[in-house]
Amino acid sequence: MNTPAGRRGTGGGVRVQRADARANRARILDVAEEVFGKGGESASTEEVARLAGVGIATVFRHFPTKTALLEAVLARRFDRQREQAEALLNAADPGQAFLGFFRYLVADAPAKIGIAEALLDAGGDGGGEAAQASTELRQAFGALLQRAQQAGVIRDDVELPEVYALLVGVSRAAAREHPGEQMRARLLTIVFDGLAPRL
Amino acid sequence: MNTPAGRRGTGGGVRVQRADARANRARILDVAEEVFGKGGESASTEEVARLAGVGIATVFRHFPTKTALLEAVLARRFDRQREQAEALLNAADPGQAFLGFFRYLVADAPAKIGIAEALLDAGGDGGGEAAQASTELRQAFGALLQRAQQAGVIRDDVELPEVYALLVGVSRAAAREHPGEQMRARLLTIVFDGLAPRL
Repeated sequence: MNTPAGRRGTGGGVRVQRADARANRARILDVAEEVFGKGGESASTEEVARLAGVGIATVFRHFPTKTALLEAVLARRFDRQREQAEALLNAADPGQAFLGFFRYLVADAPAKIGIAEALLDAGGDGGGEAAQASTELRQAFGALLQRAQQAGVIRDDVELPEVYALLVGVSRAAAREHPGEQMRARLLTIVFDGLAPRL
Repeated sequence: MNTPAGRRGTGGGVRVQRADARANRARILDVAEEVFGKGGESASTEEVARLAGVGIATVFRHFPTKTALLEAVLARRFDRQREQAEALLNAADPGQAFLGFFRYLVADAPAKIGIAEALLDAGGDGGGEAAQASTELRQAFGALLQRAQQAGVIRDDVELPEVYALLVGVSRAAAREHPGEQMRARLLTIVFDGLAPRL
């Protein structure tokens, strides 16, 4: 089969296999994000394999350990959010961009915290690729904050460390207390009024 | 020895023993609060016994399990804080009383969270006397909030659930991030400005 057509065929087959593997990997990550984001006792690698329609061996070929799977899920989520923050750096209204992103991160927190806790339970040490991706998200959030401060819509006497600590604190409160929409809105009203420029 | 003097002597001895037991119990609680409040790997019931100057058997006579000891430590801390809040209900300046108590609880949070985490690690289920004492502290905090709102120094469009969630969130952020004094002050400035009445 050493004809040009045969080589093309073989090469095509390898490409298809690689494309299949990539699609499997992405589907496993999607399902794992959904399953572990919901938390609860039933979350397991077996359930991920079942819902992704692949064998458990396929999951372990891509992610040798549960820790590796959860690290990848969490890192991808941070990366996606960092990309959203970077896109918002070009938004016409820097204040709305910053506050909207803050609000979005708080709303997203319960699922993210669920995944992070599953990672800790699985033995993750908090020093992997997710931690790096988290640091990059924080930097992008800081750039949004700075732009909003330069535009005069966020007070200029606060710095990233305390604003990020406030974001994390409110996120954890929102995830822990399971507030309804109204309570979360009032919580954010307090924080956003506190971040407004002093008159 | 059935003389009146003998009975008095025996009764006095029992009273002394009971006073000794109470003193031992209080000292064990004091030391445990200090040791577990600092957190760290070295915190143990053995260390508490050693620093309290009693045998480990004495600790276990008062507190049959580590969980029982930590429950009692945490409940006592909540009770003390509730008493402080109740005393502040008579303060001349309701705004300063509320904000000062909020600031105090945030500053106190690292030690309290250290004890609560030790309790969880020891198998506490969060449903013991400490949980009840925590609920009572929350009610006293709510009374301080209400008084400050009635005095017009805290905005009247917020309610206890979100203000308490904010307190817990900021407390956890302060405990987790180990902020310096300045960062913690700026964090509280944002929150307190957000809680101020709207102009």
